[in-house]
Amino acid sequence: MDAQSFKEFGKAALDFIADYMENIRDRDVLPSVKPGYLIDLLPKEMPEKPEQWQEVLQDINKYIKPGITNWQSPNFHAFYISGCSYPSMVGEMLSAAFSVIGFHWLCSPACTELEMVVMDWLAKFLKLPAQFLHSTEGPGGGIMQGSASESVLVAVMAAREQTVLRVKAEQPALSEGEIRARLVGYSSDQSNSCIEKAGVLGTVPLRLLAADENQIMRGAHLAKAVKEDLANGLIPTICIATIGTTGTCAYDDIETLASVCEEHNIWLHVDAAYAGAALALDDHAQLRRGLERVDSLNYNLHKSMLVNFDCTAMWMRDSNRVVDSFNVDRIYLQSKYNGQTDIPEFRHWQIPLGRRFRALKVWLVFRIFGAEGLREHLHKQLRLAKRFEQHVLADARVELVAKRSLGLVCFRVKGDNQLTADLLQRITDRKKLYMVQASFGGKDFIRFAVCGMDPKEEDMDFAWHEIEGQLNKLLSEEKGKKIEAITVNAHDTQQKDNEDGISQQLSSGLHISLGADERAP
Amino acid sequence: MDAQSFKEFGKAALDFIADYMENIRDRDVLPSVKPGYLIDLLPKEMPEKPEQWQEVLQDINKYIKPGITNWQSPNFHAFYISGCSYPSMVGEMLSAAFSVIGFHWLCSPACTELEMVVMDWLAKFLKLPAQFLHSTEGPGGGIMQGSASESVLVAVMAAREQTVLRVKAEQPALSEGEIRARLVGYSSDQSNSCIEKAGVLGTVPLRLLAADENQIMRGAHLAKAVKEDLANGLIPTICIATIGTTGTCAYDDIETLASVCEEHNIWLHVDAAYAGAALALDDHAQLRRGLERVDSLNYNLHKSMLVNFDCTAMWMRDSNRVVDSFNVDRIYLQSKYNGQTDIPEFRHWQIPLGRRFRALKVWLVFRIFGAEGLREHLHKQLRLAKRFEQHVLADARVELVAKRSLGLVCFRVKGDNQLTADLLQRITDRKKLYMVQASFGGKDFIRFAVCGMDPKEEDMDFAWHEIEGQLNKLLSEEKGKKIEAITVNAHDTQQKDNEDGISQQLSSGLHISLGADERAP
Repeated sequence: MDAQSFKEFGKAALDFIADYMENIRDRDVLPSVKPGYLIDLLPKEMPEKPEQWQEVLQDINKYIKPGITNWQSPNFHAFYISGCSYPSMVGEMLSAAFSVIGFHWLCSPACTELEMVVMDWLAKFLKLPAQFLHSTEGPGGGIMQGSASESVLVAVMAAREQTVLRVKAEQPALSEGEIRARLVGYSSDQSNSCIEKAGVLGTVPLRLLAADENQIMRGAHLAKAVKEDLANGLIPTICIATIGTTGTCAYDDIETLASVCEEHNIWLHVDAAYAGAALALDDHAQLRRGLERVDSLNYNLHKSMLVNFDCTAMWMRDSNRVVDSFNVDRIYLQSKYNGQTDIPEFRHWQIPLGRRFRALKVWLVFRIFGAEGLREHLHKQLRLAKRFEQHVLADARVELVAKRSLGLVCFRVKGDNQLTADLLQRITDRKKLYMVQASFGGKDFIRFAVCGMDPKEEDMDFAWHEIEGQLNKLLSEEKGKKIEAITVNAHDTQQKDNEDGISQQLSSGLHISLGADERAP
Repeated sequence: MDAQSFKEFGKAALDFIADYMENIRDRDVLPSVKPGYLIDLLPKEMPEKPEQWQEVLQDINKYIKPGITNWQSPNFHAFYISGCSYPSMVGEMLSAAFSVIGFHWLCSPACTELEMVVMDWLAKFLKLPAQFLHSTEGPGGGIMQGSASESVLVAVMAAREQTVLRVKAEQPALSEGEIRARLVGYSSDQSNSCIEKAGVLGTVPLRLLAADENQIMRGAHLAKAVKEDLANGLIPTICIATIGTTGTCAYDDIETLASVCEEHNIWLHVDAAYAGAALALDDHAQLRRGLERVDSLNYNLHKSMLVNFDCTAMWMRDSNRVVDSFNVDRIYLQSKYNGQTDIPEFRHWQIPLGRRFRALKVWLVFRIFGAEGLREHLHKQLRLAKRFEQHVLADARVELVAKRSLGLVCFRVKGDNQLTADLLQRITDRKKLYMVQASFGGKDFIRFAVCGMDPKEEDMDFAWHEIEGQLNKLLSEEKGKKIEAITVNAHDTQQKDNEDGISQQLSSGLHISLGADERAP
């Protein structure tokens, strides 16, 4: 493909993207395809001869778009927001054009240095403690990793190696194998699955401590577990706290956790993948408490920061603790600048050798939106979540499960869990909204997260209208089933209901819980 | 930024990229900046107010471009090629626009399925054994990881967990900690640094076995090491072979390694990060030998396959062995399709939970170049390397260190290592070419890899011309130094030369080796 065709193809792609984005409300958020749809549609082998870009772009429209779950639709409310913005897309293309692999400074000075610059910009925007800045004295600083999963795993592996070194020195009688076999870490049972996985992959089993009734892990939980483990000869290694849990966006209590960690030489990592953004907002200043006592911290720019996936910021208080654990150099990786400057060798701060030029898209986004624009994007998510919450609060048939937190509202249908599950299934089948289910303390609930590239007030109303409509139908059908059952089998049913513990409050429709036999699809 | 501004910004970026690429020969391959240049130039905080895209694009020209090492220049010959093509750039932008995070099928059916399709296309293009195809019966298949580093680490961690399970069953008397402490793995001392790192991160110490005189690791090397380790009570877990070592692009002997691995239940992973591309070429058919006996295999599409970083293909013979080791699910990750279809849950095949829609750019590249175009791109690299090799062979002052292999030519100045180091330093300082040094068997050498998006015959001639010019100067200066030294201190020097073992063949200029004292700095 020559430069002229590239420009034509690129311009057509720009039009395609703008059209997709500006008309995204016309599409169902969930696709109407069955598993295997694309495998059946596409050839079994790559074409032998080159094809025209016009044909390929048509096929994106024809084959790919129908199989896309529209994360950028304002009707997407599952998981958490996946960042996206026009400047970020252009940044991604520019970065692909340079195609540098920045594993040391000379591999592309701009790649390493722009990353230092924007990581410091972001740390200041989030009002993080100065120890995390490259521009202050000391071994701290920030790096861009691919994901929260990767950041947490880096922390686990570094904590592991540092703990092995420390215990070796303290207890020379123990073999390295014995030390490694005794390592243990901690997180909350509300933490993301990637944290448990990091424990498995990093060979530091993580105990998932039961959070309190507000889904918060506190120092007292950790202290108790550490005490038990020490009594059993285990070696507490790392604690991973969460600011913004996946289920309900709860905030662990960093200050009391830090006290326990400091007492026992435990690495404290904070996974602020989602809620890290709120650190920028002065009305959420309480979230910053204790962060100066944290060893490492990650925040997903590819969530609320208008930057597309993948882009996770990770800060370390002492990068040497990671570098010393990860460094395995070779002669072909040397340049005359190695170790000669204050510029970090980021390859030792991460798992892979190679590094994308992610800082470019971040720089574009930060400049084109400005701090003001980024804060407004965050505030908007809070405003919209509040608007949705008003709808929930106004309907007596549903209830909040947790306090609204940032862009997340957690609600359920009052009564038996199955009602909530049925409601969600109906909504999902209609494909107008995408939300997912979670569970806490025996209660299943629906998570409604404000997502999409440009959601608006009316999108919240649309969502509630859809939910309300399906809830009306569900409850009226349930009521119908009940009446029918009572009419047809008045005696048997009455008997059975009592046996199965089914209670019916048909007159109000507020609380209908069903026996297991009636729940099956 | 609205859609109209996006189109304008995007079109300006397309022009910028085309201009950068088409005129890349006008720029030095290495930048002329000092460490810290960009940190000094940019503001210490992000702008408070939004800025115009025009200003930002200007700043890319002004601040970023001068700090870019031009990996896409045909004068870049360091490391290995970093893939790039116009369709790939557009694909990256489209993928950023959809911004899906494909951790399960419903998260974006097209994301998972297109990946299955293009991984099978690629497996067929490379003529891999059928066990690695999704479309054949059985638990094998391919996935896109971010890097070779990540793929190797996935293999190490999966092999580790599988070995622990197996040995636990075989020897119930051993505790899990005891088993883990005895695990050991193998690779060659010619393998990439990421392999040693995977051993450290994955807590399976890797023995780097000395390769033979052709930089090849063979079954006999492995058998000897395994025997020693078994005698010491260790548990051989994984062997990582390389097809295309970083130093000289040597190919380990997969067939004899496989025999040893099969005998001892050792996971055999092949890192074909660079040379995997050659599997597509029938004149390299011998490289395919033994691959049907391999457990997992990675190849970097972001090297010779015109796809930009990051994009590593990894195939597994039995994906269940990874899934069983990595799976930690949560209710919010469930969908009604989980486990109901043959569609893989790729999140369990990799480290992170999130997944980029990498398949899109790959699909674009495969269709717009076609198998024919991809093969021609590979053949071109071979042709150009051969052309460069002709220059080396024609000059009696330099020698090849290893057989030319794919797009890599390894050469050195005859005589003392310092001459080669000095030559490379001179060339690097002039910034017209970028090559890196490597070492084998006590001989330092220069690696010349054919790289860049669109290198041509004349670029090889240009490179040789630059090298030759600097070599002439270096040797004439060395000669000058010698003559001066002889003239000024005839007696002393003669005496000293004899002591230091310095030999001089001033008349021919073919072989000048210098004493240590004259080499500094």
